Amino acid sequence: MHPHPATIHVARAQHHLRWDNSIPPIHHVASGAVIEFDLLDAANGQIGPDATVAAIETLDFGQVDQVNGPIFVTGAEPGDTLQIDLLDLQPADWGWTAIIPGFGLLADEFTTPALKIWRLSNGWADFAPGIRIPLAPFCGEIGLAPGAAGALSTIPPYRHGGNMDTKHLTSGATLYLPVEAPGALFSLGDGHAAQGDGEVCGTAIETPMRATVRLTVRKDLSINAPQFQTGGPLTPHTNTAPYYATDGIGPDLLEAARDAIRHMITHLQRAYGLSRADAYMLCSVAVDLKLAEVVDAPNWVVSAFLPLSIFGER
Amino acid sequence: MHPHPATIHVARAQHHLRWDNSIPPIHHVASGAVIEFDLLDAANGQIGPDATVAAIETLDFGQVDQVNGPIFVTGAEPGDTLQIDLLDLQPADWGWTAIIPGFGLLADEFTTPALKIWRLSNGWADFAPGIRIPLAPFCGEIGLAPGAAGALSTIPPYRHGGNMDTKHLTSGATLYLPVEAPGALFSLGDGHAAQGDGEVCGTAIETPMRATVRLTVRKDLSINAPQFQTGGPLTPHTNTAPYYATDGIGPDLLEAARDAIRHMITHLQRAYGLSRADAYMLCSVAVDLKLAEVVDAPNWVVSAFLPLSIFGER
Repeated sequence: MHPHPATIHVARAQHHLRWDNSIPPIHHVASGAVIEFDLLDAANGQIGPDATVAAIETLDFGQVDQVNGPIFVTGAEPGDTLQIDLLDLQPADWGWTAIIPGFGLLADEFTTPALKIWRLSNGWADFAPGIRIPLAPFCGEIGLAPGAAGALSTIPPYRHGGNMDTKHLTSGATLYLPVEAPGALFSLGDGHAAQGDGEVCGTAIETPMRATVRLTVRKDLSINAPQFQTGGPLTPHTNTAPYYATDGIGPDLLEAARDAIRHMITHLQRAYGLSRADAYMLCSVAVDLKLAEVVDAPNWVVSAFLPLSIFGER
Repeated sequence: MHPHPATIHVARAQHHLRWDNSIPPIHHVASGAVIEFDLLDAANGQIGPDATVAAIETLDFGQVDQVNGPIFVTGAEPGDTLQIDLLDLQPADWGWTAIIPGFGLLADEFTTPALKIWRLSNGWADFAPGIRIPLAPFCGEIGLAPGAAGALSTIPPYRHGGNMDTKHLTSGATLYLPVEAPGALFSLGDGHAAQGDGEVCGTAIETPMRATVRLTVRKDLSINAPQFQTGGPLTPHTNTAPYYATDGIGPDLLEAARDAIRHMITHLQRAYGLSRADAYMLCSVAVDLKLAEVVDAPNWVVSAFLPLSIFGER
């Protein structure tokens, strides 16, 4: 039995492709409603478990990062906060990771498309012999409609949420988003089975997802950007062994992040014999970017952390 | 008995204030040597356990971030890597954290000096009733001399190390730095008893430190920026409970980091009744900055993570 029986079900086809407060809600719910979403992957069904790299070459970017909804929550007014309890997140038994030309932190250096199809089973995804990633499912897209009229792309995140791609929003976490439009107009999408902080190649382990959430209007809290509480300690399935880290150091944080990932790709090639493309994709699904220091002007330190637990180290 | 008997001892007074390959080495050692450093805090003794905020007002910045050394490691040549095994790190029984006008991520918003003196005992530092920080000692400054002639400030970090302020370089970690000058010319300083990723107010729990390291020349490894392996899982003493996180979202990572910390300061004031200055200092010693995503152009997400374990939550 499901511990949180959903009163509302949202089907795969009930999606939209822009953040826009003029999109008619598919449901009106009371504060406290529990809703179950059946979500296609972020390619909106263009990539299946038997796909080849040809699917990346012909990918229609105008159809990606669809979000399911919107849900009108009665009583939610601009200035309120919508509390989103992430009750249950169940990925499909397969997923994909891709290098999509023109997209990603090192887009200028990775211009050839690549596609990896994953089998997901018993909480793990096998990358290669001896390398496996523990699943930690979450939704990359969790957002509300903007207050201003007009349509916004679903690719970037905003102060009202959207494509935050935040790996710590796993089951048990609670997210808070600022309400800008009456009814909040909540939507959800972009299932990820696992990801590193940064999502550096632009894709995680992308997967269809069944997601159950509770939506609650909070009149007592006013925020102006996303906030959240995790369900427990961070990354309990990966933080079980040492990490190997590579630094990028310099006055520009984005360039320092690029350098840290470049050095990690070189390390993965040298230490584990991976191809450059595989190393980049492994960084995207498993390597975490941290800001070590942002005060010792003029040079900041960004570190890329590789969990050695994925190689079976303890 | 110490498990790694040091053959060389470096005294507090054996320090210098610039990275410069013309500074004469205080010792010549063989590869594999174990060295014990007795380090003053980063204010070079200007702040003591009984100091008041007046010490910040009169702080001579020309004397801060001294590093002890340099140590000439026989056989180290440009292009080699120096492996630094961090064998033992013992902070003093006190430390300090300060807001220093003109310094820190929110320097323009915190223009009044502040000083907090900590007692450190049994592995903990008490911040306020009900808030205590587990110690995780490391050295902020670990570096080699540059290859080029001339003197570099010890405030910023460089590709050859220096003020990396990397909290994960605790006892048991191994750091790799690229050798630029013959003999590597290793120096160490800036003891920290605890710090968040980012060190946002510009100071950690600053403390005198006794540090024991092993220096090994690696001819088989060539890198061009710092790399390291941690001694075990990350932050085992703080990652024991949920975290509360605040986001900064936008096209500039440094401004997004500022926003994330601004929101966390507001949260700490509202949820725990802290003053703005105390909240900023607590962020610096306990809150971690992560790059959630750096690919959903044009908006990136920086998240500030507050470990609820410091409030006794489990």
